[in-house]
Amino acid sequence: MPKYSDGLDRMFHALGDASRRAMVERLARGPASVSELARPFDMALPSVVQHLGVLEAAGIVVSTKVGRVRTYQLATDALTPAAEWISRQRLPAERRLDRLGAFLDTPTDKETT
Amino acid sequence: MPKYSDGLDRMFHALGDASRRAMVERLARGPASVSELARPFDMALPSVVQHLGVLEAAGIVVSTKVGRVRTYQLATDALTPAAEWISRQRLPAERRLDRLGAFLDTPTDKETT
Repeated sequence: MPKYSDGLDRMFHALGDASRRAMVERLARGPASVSELARPFDMALPSVVQHLGVLEAAGIVVSTKVGRVRTYQLATDALTPAAEWISRQRLPAERRLDRLGAFLDTPTDKETT
Repeated sequence: MPKYSDGLDRMFHALGDASRRAMVERLARGPASVSELARPFDMALPSVVQHLGVLEAAGIVVSTKVGRVRTYQLATDALTPAAEWISRQRLPAERRLDRLGAFLDTPTDKETT
């Protein structure tokens, strides 16, 4: 069993919740405070903080506190372990086509969604 | 909320367990029966079947029954929704470097692990 198993358990578990994924989507656009993160959700602040705690324990987000404001941002290479694990499971031929496709793809359309 | 949310919930949840990921790793090398999948695990057959049920409900594996033997295999593009979601969260610059790296990378070393 590879030693990053627990890390992958935590990471995939953290991503298995639509609210947490929406927070990651928001943070992919830039850092945000807890109240900024809470705004689009019909959710009490403690619940938001709890979700952020799950994401932080999984190594997906990091937080810094300046004065009374805690700001969250995506960790460097936050989702790389999950992406690499998935990539290793794909059939070799499929994987090579993906790489070529991804490389040739112009990201403009996808980045505006 | 995008309509594939529930699907992503199920998919990431299914991947958040080391035993289920090990089954996916096995099936990435080719189809297998339940007993073949059970062999490397110190696990009762019903538990193996239960894990496979979670993977099947998430659309990651499909099964076919011939006579009394049920064979499992990875679904076509099994992990693509998860891979695409992850890819969309990465910072644009990081993502472009990844693509270049993945395209230039020779897969030989990684595929033997």
